[in-house]
Amino acid sequence: MTCRLTKSRSSDAETHFTEKYFSQTLDHFNFNSMGNGTFSQRYLISDKYWKKGYGPIFFYTGNEGDIWEFALNSGFITELAVQQKALVIFAEHRYYGKSLPFGKDSFNIPQISLLTVEQALADYSVMITELKQQLAATECPVIVFGGSYGGMLSVYMRLKYPNIVAGGLAASAPILSTAGMGDSRQFFRDVTNDFENIAPECRDAVRGAFHQLKELAESHDYSRIQSEFTLCKPPSSAQDIHQLYGLLRNAFTLMAMLDYPYSTHFMGNMPANPVKVACETMLSGSDLLGNLRNTAGIVYNATGVLTCFDLYNLYLECADPTGCGLGFDSLAWDYQACTEINLCFESNNVTDMFPPMAFTEKDRELYCSTRWAVVPRPHWLKTQFWGDALSTASNIIFSNGDLDPWANGGVRKSLSSSLIAVNTGGAHHLDLRGSHDDDPATVIAARKTEADIIEQWVKMERTRLQTLS
Amino acid sequence: MTCRLTKSRSSDAETHFTEKYFSQTLDHFNFNSMGNGTFSQRYLISDKYWKKGYGPIFFYTGNEGDIWEFALNSGFITELAVQQKALVIFAEHRYYGKSLPFGKDSFNIPQISLLTVEQALADYSVMITELKQQLAATECPVIVFGGSYGGMLSVYMRLKYPNIVAGGLAASAPILSTAGMGDSRQFFRDVTNDFENIAPECRDAVRGAFHQLKELAESHDYSRIQSEFTLCKPPSSAQDIHQLYGLLRNAFTLMAMLDYPYSTHFMGNMPANPVKVACETMLSGSDLLGNLRNTAGIVYNATGVLTCFDLYNLYLECADPTGCGLGFDSLAWDYQACTEINLCFESNNVTDMFPPMAFTEKDRELYCSTRWAVVPRPHWLKTQFWGDALSTASNIIFSNGDLDPWANGGVRKSLSSSLIAVNTGGAHHLDLRGSHDDDPATVIAARKTEADIIEQWVKMERTRLQTLS
Repeated sequence: MTCRLTKSRSSDAETHFTEKYFSQTLDHFNFNSMGNGTFSQRYLISDKYWKKGYGPIFFYTGNEGDIWEFALNSGFITELAVQQKALVIFAEHRYYGKSLPFGKDSFNIPQISLLTVEQALADYSVMITELKQQLAATECPVIVFGGSYGGMLSVYMRLKYPNIVAGGLAASAPILSTAGMGDSRQFFRDVTNDFENIAPECRDAVRGAFHQLKELAESHDYSRIQSEFTLCKPPSSAQDIHQLYGLLRNAFTLMAMLDYPYSTHFMGNMPANPVKVACETMLSGSDLLGNLRNTAGIVYNATGVLTCFDLYNLYLECADPTGCGLGFDSLAWDYQACTEINLCFESNNVTDMFPPMAFTEKDRELYCSTRWAVVPRPHWLKTQFWGDALSTASNIIFSNGDLDPWANGGVRKSLSSSLIAVNTGGAHHLDLRGSHDDDPATVIAARKTEADIIEQWVKMERTRLQTLS
Repeated sequence: MTCRLTKSRSSDAETHFTEKYFSQTLDHFNFNSMGNGTFSQRYLISDKYWKKGYGPIFFYTGNEGDIWEFALNSGFITELAVQQKALVIFAEHRYYGKSLPFGKDSFNIPQISLLTVEQALADYSVMITELKQQLAATECPVIVFGGSYGGMLSVYMRLKYPNIVAGGLAASAPILSTAGMGDSRQFFRDVTNDFENIAPECRDAVRGAFHQLKELAESHDYSRIQSEFTLCKPPSSAQDIHQLYGLLRNAFTLMAMLDYPYSTHFMGNMPANPVKVACETMLSGSDLLGNLRNTAGIVYNATGVLTCFDLYNLYLECADPTGCGLGFDSLAWDYQACTEINLCFESNNVTDMFPPMAFTEKDRELYCSTRWAVVPRPHWLKTQFWGDALSTASNIIFSNGDLDPWANGGVRKSLSSSLIAVNTGGAHHLDLRGSHDDDPATVIAARKTEADIIEQWVKMERTRLQTLS
């Protein structure tokens, strides 16, 4: 789901958060073998705006990356903390960032095997319970926040631990598609739609460029491909062409996901409105291949420092066709996509503009057993996290934006008066970002709705907690 | 919690259940190492009364013993199946009965480590999901039933998997005390109360007998103790005396738990109204020690075949002061009491009639680390299974009987219109037993209430399932 993390610029957030470590149970579901140990789990905490012992706790359920990246790109939570006098905690997901249970050996087999969704949820539950004790905050309502996979974790926290969290804001959480309950063509179709919505010609240009590339590949004109795409080395096999397809498709994925109305430095550097920029680039002349290269350059060469593209350094193929990113975090995410999280999405050049690239359950099984010695369990997430049978849950906001290709893998319609769908009108969890002059009216309204609902949850939960004590 | 299982007599149940095995995931929470395998999980199934593809599924969440014992002693479920045209399934808990993941090696370290509450719940969830597919029963509502620890599992199923089960009847489920949320003196106080309620003199006689025994032990008069208690070998140490205390206290525990109005063959052979019989025995003459021995004989020598009591063969001290039973099942239960299930109950001779026998958290830690190489996690069950913060749950009946020393470790008052406390007026999960001429009016009324509520749940769930499909 994620891609390359870049160092963010310093911000107010960096100064008001303190970085700490929590001694966390290594294995919540096994008391023997490796299970008796602990590891250091990182979290960021800010009590700058907290009404001590009374104000709520806003807890970000960290997802697949360095927790600072999420803290620095989720300014809404801090803005809400100011309004509601909340304590803010951003907890890092095990096996990401600096929360590596076995240090650099964490990605070996079997050390990696303690990376599961259930362990992560148990981590957060134990951490919240203990920190509330330490901070004399036992009567403070806890609201969880998360974006993307982090949003899924926020949903799951409310499903599985409503004793601990009073409500959750799940921003752009594809809880249905990742549970295997969607259409495998939906994701790349919706990426395509974003470009088509700028101009149908844009979609056609992309499709045309991929068609030209395919013809060059079929005629084995590898040197032409190298020069058109400024590759550091010429491709020399079908595998290299496949890799090039993947790298190019991923550029469009990222621009669609991160189609924010202002330039950002989250999961790479993006200009404002990257989909629009991409379409301008795709339609900037008749050299379709050159346009495609330059469009990919928006993502892979934002700073302009690369003189050539290294196929295997810029993009990693893995069990997530939308991208695993690079570095250690990508290993962890690949493992999760090989075990619990279903991401068998395909492009087919019929319902989307990309080359046909399937990733079937069979492909996944083969890859995952070879790479990680695991057999994926495609039905597990639906069994474990309720699938679409969410009616007994409560106090969850499912926010999604029309520009986000993940949106239709999530909950788009309210399921009850307390399972509320909110449309942000933007890209991937735009609502979690801090306010910006260029915000569309839709996201401003969405944040207001979210703030009001959360305030109500806090009020109700405070009453409940006071009754208990 | 359990004790010695004896072979039950044949009954109608034996003829209408078919014994089957399910290929179950070995480790739901780890995809590597041991986790890729499966094991054969036993279940009993009867479709004799089922309206195929339409009637509900009544699913017993097996607890700490051979599943046949529960099937043969839970006739209410079959009676209800007749009324409501239900399919009946009794699923055996992993590591009990014949559901041993590693055969006779299952109780070694680390093989034992896949014995957790979470694994058991995941077993039932996966089994229900797959059997519904196999049986063309996807629109059939599932109701879970369980007694004692099995009742806890039924509660947890509804908390954690409401997508799979529409409601649960948790009979005599001590969900609060086992989560460490009770008074450690409650259990043996309530055992004592049962005897006191027959006659305060009965309680005094028991206390007096234990006092005489203590004096003999303090004067090291071991041969007298041997002859008074017909022990096969004379005690020779404080440890032996401690074991004798435990064995004797356990007899009272069992009679209180199993104080049914007719003779039973569940967890041993019991006469009708054993507490009354015990008090008659305790008050049958002035030989207090002899009376105590004969009272213990009601439990340990019901058939009269023993010529002497073997201290260490009749009773096993373990991490559960209320008894772990004997045989392989006792090993599994001991492990569970050493990890997740909190049972640090004490007798003290002040709030109860027994010798002071503490079992503190420190005692537990020492015992469990030595015996199983584990460190108990006393706070985990409360975090994981919501403690007393159950308000967001729904569709659970908490039934308890006033005669049952476990009752006050459970939920005695309704928490909402769908979290309903029912008083059976009897002993340990009397309501789950089949109808009997000697049933008190209270349990007849309780079963009627339960049947009506379950019928409502089934109706509501059928509507929901039909809407989904």
